Amino acid sequence: MAIEQLNGVRTAKAALEEYVEALLGAAGADAPSAAAVARSVVDASSRGVDTHGVRLVPWYLQMIEGGRINGRPVLGFEKKAAAVGHVDADNGFGHLASYRAIEEGIALAKEAGVAAITVGRSSHHGASGVYALAAARQGFAAISMTHADPAVVPFGGKKPFFGTNPLAFAVPAPGEEPMLLDMATSAIPYNRIFLRRATGTPLPAEVAVDAEGHPTRDPHAATAVRPLGGADFGYKGAGLASMVDILCSAFTGMGHGATIDPLAGSDYSKTIPIGHFFLVMNPSIFQAFAAFDARVGAFLADLRRQPAHPGQTVMAPGDVEKAEAARRAEAGIPVDAVTWAALEAAAGRYGKAVPQSWT
Amino acid sequence: MAIEQLNGVRTAKAALEEYVEALLGAAGADAPSAAAVARSVVDASSRGVDTHGVRLVPWYLQMIEGGRINGRPVLGFEKKAAAVGHVDADNGFGHLASYRAIEEGIALAKEAGVAAITVGRSSHHGASGVYALAAARQGFAAISMTHADPAVVPFGGKKPFFGTNPLAFAVPAPGEEPMLLDMATSAIPYNRIFLRRATGTPLPAEVAVDAEGHPTRDPHAATAVRPLGGADFGYKGAGLASMVDILCSAFTGMGHGATIDPLAGSDYSKTIPIGHFFLVMNPSIFQAFAAFDARVGAFLADLRRQPAHPGQTVMAPGDVEKAEAARRAEAGIPVDAVTWAALEAAAGRYGKAVPQSWT
Repeated sequence: MAIEQLNGVRTAKAALEEYVEALLGAAGADAPSAAAVARSVVDASSRGVDTHGVRLVPWYLQMIEGGRINGRPVLGFEKKAAAVGHVDADNGFGHLASYRAIEEGIALAKEAGVAAITVGRSSHHGASGVYALAAARQGFAAISMTHADPAVVPFGGKKPFFGTNPLAFAVPAPGEEPMLLDMATSAIPYNRIFLRRATGTPLPAEVAVDAEGHPTRDPHAATAVRPLGGADFGYKGAGLASMVDILCSAFTGMGHGATIDPLAGSDYSKTIPIGHFFLVMNPSIFQAFAAFDARVGAFLADLRRQPAHPGQTVMAPGDVEKAEAARRAEAGIPVDAVTWAALEAAAGRYGKAVPQSWT
Repeated sequence: MAIEQLNGVRTAKAALEEYVEALLGAAGADAPSAAAVARSVVDASSRGVDTHGVRLVPWYLQMIEGGRINGRPVLGFEKKAAAVGHVDADNGFGHLASYRAIEEGIALAKEAGVAAITVGRSSHHGASGVYALAAARQGFAAISMTHADPAVVPFGGKKPFFGTNPLAFAVPAPGEEPMLLDMATSAIPYNRIFLRRATGTPLPAEVAVDAEGHPTRDPHAATAVRPLGGADFGYKGAGLASMVDILCSAFTGMGHGATIDPLAGSDYSKTIPIGHFFLVMNPSIFQAFAAFDARVGAFLADLRRQPAHPGQTVMAPGDVEKAEAARRAEAGIPVDAVTWAALEAAAGRYGKAVPQSWT
């Protein structure tokens, strides 16, 4: 990950989580909100998902300081049927509402076998995968989705219409962390443009477009990304983005992505409500858990032993992040210099102590 | 679609469906099985999905004649929880079991709001999208998936491991046919190799590989396809394929895709059981249906009016097929010459009348 080249710092996971939590608390988040955001971004950073990790914290601080995010939300939950529930996020952090949705989904899926939980009046929730992972760490399989403001051009189109609309799927795996697929339905996550601006490295070909909708590899010229599948097969990524958008809007009561104001806009006082969609499944209702577990294990083992081209290895979804998590557990979690400086500035503002770091 | 260049015939939808049904019945399928297969393949052909349309019927006839497919299955259904059910396909046609799964899913989702229906001991079910579409035509949203025998190399790998593992999503839309996303998680459907062999046209670049796992555009040299995302981002398609495989195996009680014998192999006497996974959602439990419907309508209208590059139009998932369905409703459904000859040969074998065709 290019983040290592940024002359930033490395911190221990617990210290980093505590630091982030303290900063959010000082900025006006109540204890559950601050804990949920810190848990989410540090989980992402601990697995190498830096685009959706601690890098987002200065932005979250801006949003709560500006008043866009309600730091003391009163979450609502309505059970709508045996297998459907809705969480009202009360314009608080999406992280809090999303962890709540997973807990409610588990509670319903225990009995019903599967549960769909929608979230409305929410906000950016970081990496969608952390919520699916939270369910899978408790023995449940889960799908997690969010829509967002436009950043992705439709197939054949010139102007952003879709959010990067991630789709995540996690399933418990025997003897290891759950298998986790966590992918933007865009060719790349939009956040990667910012990361590439920070690292000064060009974008891959055919994944981003400039203001006129033409392909560009310059992260400073790039204003939007293409759907997964690119120039030839982008209708598939756009189709997945459409599915995510509809599940996160028509099913949650929110407007579709293209009606959402820019989340990175300059006015941080205005509320910008978005929706998320979660599906939680109880494997034990479908099959005897031991048999289920053995089948997932056999799938992973078989996939990982497949013959690969020279210099490559066949990996299962999430294997890259598992390896990185092991490295970071040893070496600490790297935080890039720009983010670290912003966190230090916030700590200064709030009078909070900066934790000890490796470098 | 290249199928028009094949000097085949055009037939009316009802006549074609009746013909296919009669042939399957003559080959040994009972009335519900013959009707389900005919309904499925003619629905696909009527919308231009020729890879999964009537072209498959000679193959299905081979499988029932050989004894692989049980033409007179006794389907089992077990409700496992308020929102989970399992259909045992009794080694019959996957089409019959899949339509049954959708009906059971609708019955459960009416009360529970959402229902997951797994199918085990099944077989090839044609186009996965037709089952999601069947639910959406009744006012329900649905996801449909199937795994299959290996045809797709893993990201970085040389040997097929995944089936093309399609993912379909359908949702009711106001004043028109449902929105339908129906995509292989591979770069292209494996059937397209056969269609390109028949039409003698090269494959798109970077989507297929030869026996050594190297990219090829020659449909005769191609033995496997790549996951969606190709050389750079194929880990996403492979991740989606993994999700589909696990939902269709660990959740259904079947083995994962790589344990499935070749469906197109030479021995048509041997049963090759596979699994499918369906999720049915009742929009009215999530939101007032009028509001839900209006949101889906607003999404589609907004998407379709997006500015496009010269010569292109921004379309919603399934719009290409809707336009083709309108043309075929007028002009008849084209059947390529190779398929037509095979159907005529079967009709001769079984002593069935060949329906009148346009050309």
